[in-house]
Amino acid sequence: MSGSDKPLRVIDDTHNSNLRSWVESANSDDTDFPIQNLPFGVFRRKHSQETVRIGVAIGDQILDLPRCRDLGLLEGIAGDLPQAIAAPVLNPLMALGPSVMAQLRGRLVRTLDSERGGGDPNLLVPMDQAELLLPVAIGDYTDFYASVFHATNVGRIFRPDNPLLPNYKHVPIAYHGRSSSIVASGTDIRRPSGQSKAPDAPHPSFGPSQRLDYEMEIGALVGVGNPLAQPIALDEAEQHLFGLCLLNDWSARDIQAWEYQPLGPFLAKSFVSTISPWVVTIEALAPFRSPAFVRPPEDPRPLPYLSSTSNEESGGIDVKVEVLLSSAQMREQGLEPLSLSRNSFLNMYWTVAQMVAHHTSNGCNLRTGDLLGSGTVSGPANDALGCLLEITRQGPVQLPSGETRRFLLDGDEVIFRGYCEREGYRRIGFGECRGTIVPAVSP
Amino acid sequence: MSGSDKPLRVIDDTHNSNLRSWVESANSDDTDFPIQNLPFGVFRRKHSQETVRIGVAIGDQILDLPRCRDLGLLEGIAGDLPQAIAAPVLNPLMALGPSVMAQLRGRLVRTLDSERGGGDPNLLVPMDQAELLLPVAIGDYTDFYASVFHATNVGRIFRPDNPLLPNYKHVPIAYHGRSSSIVASGTDIRRPSGQSKAPDAPHPSFGPSQRLDYEMEIGALVGVGNPLAQPIALDEAEQHLFGLCLLNDWSARDIQAWEYQPLGPFLAKSFVSTISPWVVTIEALAPFRSPAFVRPPEDPRPLPYLSSTSNEESGGIDVKVEVLLSSAQMREQGLEPLSLSRNSFLNMYWTVAQMVAHHTSNGCNLRTGDLLGSGTVSGPANDALGCLLEITRQGPVQLPSGETRRFLLDGDEVIFRGYCEREGYRRIGFGECRGTIVPAVSP
Repeated sequence: MSGSDKPLRVIDDTHNSNLRSWVESANSDDTDFPIQNLPFGVFRRKHSQETVRIGVAIGDQILDLPRCRDLGLLEGIAGDLPQAIAAPVLNPLMALGPSVMAQLRGRLVRTLDSERGGGDPNLLVPMDQAELLLPVAIGDYTDFYASVFHATNVGRIFRPDNPLLPNYKHVPIAYHGRSSSIVASGTDIRRPSGQSKAPDAPHPSFGPSQRLDYEMEIGALVGVGNPLAQPIALDEAEQHLFGLCLLNDWSARDIQAWEYQPLGPFLAKSFVSTISPWVVTIEALAPFRSPAFVRPPEDPRPLPYLSSTSNEESGGIDVKVEVLLSSAQMREQGLEPLSLSRNSFLNMYWTVAQMVAHHTSNGCNLRTGDLLGSGTVSGPANDALGCLLEITRQGPVQLPSGETRRFLLDGDEVIFRGYCEREGYRRIGFGECRGTIVPAVSP
Repeated sequence: MSGSDKPLRVIDDTHNSNLRSWVESANSDDTDFPIQNLPFGVFRRKHSQETVRIGVAIGDQILDLPRCRDLGLLEGIAGDLPQAIAAPVLNPLMALGPSVMAQLRGRLVRTLDSERGGGDPNLLVPMDQAELLLPVAIGDYTDFYASVFHATNVGRIFRPDNPLLPNYKHVPIAYHGRSSSIVASGTDIRRPSGQSKAPDAPHPSFGPSQRLDYEMEIGALVGVGNPLAQPIALDEAEQHLFGLCLLNDWSARDIQAWEYQPLGPFLAKSFVSTISPWVVTIEALAPFRSPAFVRPPEDPRPLPYLSSTSNEESGGIDVKVEVLLSSAQMREQGLEPLSLSRNSFLNMYWTVAQMVAHHTSNGCNLRTGDLLGSGTVSGPANDALGCLLEITRQGPVQLPSGETRRFLLDGDEVIFRGYCEREGYRRIGFGECRGTIVPAVSP
């Protein structure tokens, strides 16, 4: 680990599995939000005129940060912190950088620690009484394509003779996404209309997408940006990241197939993307660092700007992800959502640090709040595929209601979950990223 | 013309060629900024601590809008106008919509009209004493590919056997661009570094781009946005546009060739894009409306959502554009910039209204300040090509200094100009969009 990685990858007292909180629900084995996690989000009390507030998830509660500040619990960390906490989005907080975030993390642990005694319930808002909003004002959204398994599987469909292009193992391939249409988990997903053309159709036609899909991704949110024309070195890259979230890059495959050449996906993706409400900080992920993807010996070594010992040894982050589907009929019949896939973020060919270093290698500036999507998280196994396009290549999915699916139908709800676990540490989770398909706008 | 186009395409008293201003330089035949134009921008007095201010170009002067407001000259137009004029970017003003903009235009003409008498010189700031800044906070930047000539020429280079893809004449092809790195005219352009691979090289390598190019484009800036999942109909599209500017979508061709498959251009473009400081309003362009590009009879008719009588009859805007190049050696020798190409925006296969309608057809929301680039403006003639990649296909350009160019060298300055002229109307101009190449960051 290089010196510059501190304090991001340091496992310290805040990760101690013996820590318990006076918020009892945070001590439950199955919570995503023990005291060791402390992800940030933005919320508003339901049915209230209260302003939007920054909070931290703890068990089934939200720690209200402006209230912590008002009670003097956050004093002496950084001069800008009180103002940052008053904002309706995380951006000013994210811009404070890893040193302040590490101090804030320490203070929040002390505030919530059971050793403090009973704690102050006035600091909490029950999560089920809150509306969780889009946590970040996202400037630019970049979507990578970092799973070699996904790239190969999709390439096989779009270009059977040429699935994995020659640049893939040298270049962390990415495209610019649409930031205006990024919504918070729980927002309904309007089925997009668009142009498509079946291979055997004489002409294209316009109408509701018939091949609507999800893409299971991890999003990395930029904390401190870089000035234009000042690239970020690989071993400095994570200093510029605030944290990770779950990301659904909804995709209309029929629109995509017709429009994507030669400039890449556009309307097939820009109708909406969903992110989870809680951002898990890079600091919280320290115990779950892991070696980067181990490339087969025949693969090229990354060029020097994408290569470092630190990245190889601990550039990976072992986030386990799961995708579930629930159809309207399943919900009517009281059936549980069906698990479609499970995978780990470790299966990605490129690390988040490599994404940042590549993105800025041409001098491109990142700004606080920019979102870097990983691309679909697919693994080598058949039950580790991150979108329906891959899963249903061999045939439709059977739902417990007796229905089948190749692509999403109106009423389908897609649920992503993510978590990290490792022997000796408390499991921490990302919560959920959800969206339900609603019918296309009538023409 | 459909009723919904009003007041955008209405030629009224504000376009009368007999109008003269008490700002004498605005009455000169060769000014870009007569009283009939009135483009908006954002400026700061050089060497002053004064805040950033919104202004309107008039001759060689800038009309200081906050000062106009302070003197009560803008009263009674719209309640939000005084606040919008106090902003450091045009966005709040752009969001007020075409009806307010038409009223403001009328008021500005009366304020500057020579019939008003000598006028008040305190309302003016000489343009040469002002720094012109990025006028708009750009949320998302979308870049189209609307010149069939450019698409064919470039396609011939990247895909000799398949230059124009089958979707081109059905779909207004576009990709998402990078908004963080959009800069104001005059900002130096740092040569990007990146990965490239010559066709005969065994491996890719990383270094300063050797094939740095400009792309001459027109940018359309969104005024009033649309909510997510509410597409904008073709004949309503221009109601959502505030105005046009010049746009240089600088491109590193060697990086582009290696990275662009399968997801389109990324680092080849994201290092920087330049826009002109003055935004010419849609209202000012009314006299220069023209039929859209006339498609050859063998071309497909656009699908209904991209087709209307109004668009065919007057969807075009006859902006004449010119690209000039000045090398460091030329400037040392006192030589004038060399004109590389001249063209008209009428040569675009898709209109700006079609771009807006297509962009939102899937429900994607546009926000105030979003930028829609036209793509490189190339025409059918050899002297109407909008980038060096096309111009130097047959061989290098000869400069009057005795130098030659295939791509841009350090010290080269690229200058775009644009204007509209039509018998019976005053010529109006876009000013310039400039940038000079400076050496790559040393590794």
